[in-house]
Amino acid sequence: MSLTILTGLSGVGKSTVLEEAMLLSDKDYTVINYGDKMFEISKERDLVETRDEMKEIGTETYKEIQAEAAEKIFELSKDKDVILDTHATIKTPHGYIPGLPRWSVEQLNPNKIIMLQASAEEIFERTKEDDRNREHESVEGIQQYLNIEREMSAADAVLTGAYLQIINNPDGAAKEAAEKLVKTLKA
Amino acid sequence: MSLTILTGLSGVGKSTVLEEAMLLSDKDYTVINYGDKMFEISKERDLVETRDEMKEIGTETYKEIQAEAAEKIFELSKDKDVILDTHATIKTPHGYIPGLPRWSVEQLNPNKIIMLQASAEEIFERTKEDDRNREHESVEGIQQYLNIEREMSAADAVLTGAYLQIINNPDGAAKEAAEKLVKTLKA
Amino acid sequence: MSLTILTGLSGVGKSTVLEEAMLLSDKDYTVINYGDKMFEISKERDLVETRDEMKEIGTETYKEIQAEAAEKIFELSKDKDVILDTHATIKTPHGYIPGLPRWSVEQLNPNKIIMLQASAEEIFERTKEDDRNREHESVEGIQQYLNIEREMSAADAVLTGAYLQIINNPDGAAKEAAEKLVKTLKA
Repeated sequence: MSLTILTGLSGVGKSTVLEEAMLLSDKDYTVINYGDKMFEISKERDLVETRDEMKEIGTETYKEIQAEAAEKIFELSKDKDVILDTHATIKTPHGYIPGLPRWSVEQLNPNKIIMLQASAEEIFERTKEDDRNREHESVEGIQQYLNIEREMSAADAVLTGAYLQIINNPDGAAKEAAEKLVKTLKA
Repeated sequence: MSLTILTGLSGVGKSTVLEEAMLLSDKDYTVINYGDKMFEISKERDLVETRDEMKEIGTETYKEIQAEAAEKIFELSKDKDVILDTHATIKTPHGYIPGLPRWSVEQLNPNKIIMLQASAEEIFERTKEDDRNREHESVEGIQQYLNIEREMSAADAVLTGAYLQIINNPDGAAKEAAEKLVKTLKA
Repeated sequence: MSLTILTGLSGVGKSTVLEEAMLLSDKDYTVINYGDKMFEISKERDLVETRDEMKEIGTETYKEIQAEAAEKIFELSKDKDVILDTHATIKTPHGYIPGLPRWSVEQLNPNKIIMLQASAEEIFERTKEDDRNREHESVEGIQQYLNIEREMSAADAVLTGAYLQIINNPDGAAKEAAEKLVKTLKA
């Protein structure tokens, strides 16, 4: 079976394209959200009760949970074709956090890393009226975010030997993006 | 002795510049093509008969052969000054494959990684009438390819501590590029 | 306690911003220069007498000293909040050297990597009359240097899980850059 990592900034249309791709595909995939898996493990360990409390977990514990989640997802990918929905990097006021640091991505050992992207201008327009996307302040800032995401994904690919696929999702072309995603998943 | 990795997309003029550099140089280098070495090992193991069949080898076996070839090339570089002609990444319809994943580049332990490049516009013009270069569809696509190549090379340099040299080969300047290559090889 | 790596090309104003930040901060930081630490160790080992002789140390010995310095700095960061002043990459005539190769950055295990930057045009203007900055020949060359620095920093962040923060220091805004640095250090 296989493990494919799907990354993309908020505003690139990841949910829409993924949903459309699952409708188009004649193969079954198990979609897992990395953050959800980490939350599940943290709850089981009585570390948190709500998702918001995940931010309060200390760095070392956070890394442990990240590694444990990676192990479980890898195990699952032996029996199923897994799509791991996550971020190659997350922008915070204190810097870009690598979403797939070495201990995580080497444990996951993905076949492919797929980065869904759109132009910085399009992401800006799509997210400017959405309160949840306060990290997207300017077109220039989004361009930097896209660069860091691609650069960290490239490092992840070198660490694992995974294919790095980049799929564009410009305005009005979600169907084409979904078709390309289906083809890449199948390959 | 030394091991230098030479990378460059099709259309940057790698063969021409390398040939010219070997003529200019007063030192002897052993030029090895990574793909050739892998094919040689695969034939010895009766895995393939022709070069084309290399694409049919399963991922795990492919990685093994990649690692074994790296080991042999590293051994050779103890007695000779080796130039390893290869790609930091290869574009396929399913994504960019890292040509020098961690297990390969750490085994090779190169002194230098040299990336020969030209502008996306020049590469487009040089390859548009060549059927072998179907991966170069558009200037924008080539620009992305160049970025990924440089990013994966940078990750390889961080993994090994190798120098990362970037040499430009604009139209009509193959001799200057060859001279810079000779100087870098010698340093 | 904590270890923060601060990188930035010559001409981005690292000394000025760091000095200003130390004045603004209500916390105490121990600032260590990686190169100084390596020189100190090399002198203790009777390998060199002057800083200039550091360039003559063979590669293998250089890597050993780099690793030993990293170990000492990591030990120090257990008791103190350390800011490590260094370079993610150094441009030489023979290529870009990774300033934080894998064995160094994994040993340091930084919490944050902060890259101070300015536009290529500003760096060019700031350094063009300074004889020490002969690596900054052209705006285009500085742009490439900035890209490689960010790409190697991104690889370092993936190897360690460290935050990668990018702080701009445009002309006349050193105070704002220092304030952002203080906030990031504290976070």
